[in-house]
Amino acid sequence: MIVTPLTRDSFSPFGDVIEIQGTTKISINQGYATRFDDLCKVEAIDGGKIKISIFEAIPRPLPISIELMERHPLGSQAFYPLQMEDWLIVVCTDPHDAKSFRCFRASGNQGVNYARNIWHYPLLVFKPSRFIVVDRKGPGNNLEEVAIATAPQIFVN
Amino acid sequence: MIVTPLTRDSFSPFGDVIEIQGTTKISINQGYATRFDDLCKVEAIDGGKIKISIFEAIPRPLPISIELMERHPLGSQAFYPLQMEDWLIVVCTDPHDAKSFRCFRASGNQGVNYARNIWHYPLLVFKPSRFIVVDRKGPGNNLEEVAIATAPQIFVN
Repeated sequence: MIVTPLTRDSFSPFGDVIEIQGTTKISINQGYATRFDDLCKVEAIDGGKIKISIFEAIPRPLPISIELMERHPLGSQAFYPLQMEDWLIVVCTDPHDAKSFRCFRASGNQGVNYARNIWHYPLLVFKPSRFIVVDRKGPGNNLEEVAIATAPQIFVN
Repeated sequence: MIVTPLTRDSFSPFGDVIEIQGTTKISINQGYATRFDDLCKVEAIDGGKIKISIFEAIPRPLPISIELMERHPLGSQAFYPLQMEDWLIVVCTDPHDAKSFRCFRASGNQGVNYARNIWHYPLLVFKPSRFIVVDRKGPGNNLEEVAIATAPQIFVN
């Protein structure tokens, strides 16, 4: 699978890129801070609420085989990195269509918000990394997983 | 004003400390990640929704005079630092009672979630710093500010 840089445009079918580049600066706090406001669409349906968590991820052995994908039918899921390290994002529109898979390389200044129902792979990092995660809690099953018959592989250094 | 280390217990009258120490580890992602789940109480009342923003703050001249406080009557407000730098948090239970003010020093591994209606001072940093912010958007006035007649001062290096 080809790895391409993460950009707002290329990721737009899958959700939002959370980054300050290209957004409006709002001066606040008597000039001592700048607000980059409302950077993604946070969603929690069917009686859910929003929670904030921290994930710690470790690297997987290379090359990575994408043997499963997951999605959250009841809410969005945002990840923002807590260190200046690149990380990888794998998404697809149809887990049974290998051509629909995309792999993006994000910088340490870029988070993503997976839109509700978007198939994605778990966290992929190059070094042990922490992320702030904003997603849904509440009633109902908010996790679907699917096995990938012909697992795409990612080759990166 | 005395500056004390930020701890869950000491901050509990004002909201939540967002940190992984002392929380439950949940193994996820086939063992390649650990989830520290649902670390604070996110609230948005009166038809509000949750948004994710980024703030960039710069240091204020020292000593800092706490000449105003603010609060958000319609929702919580969470700040998590995006660099390993200490920062300061000033809160009070009654802005007209100087004895009710508290100043906490947080590490770069600690965020806070101000509970709804808790009086707090804007971001206080020692170096230019970025934060992920999770708070409410929606109808109604969610910002109250009050001038502090006898402004407490913070002396730190």
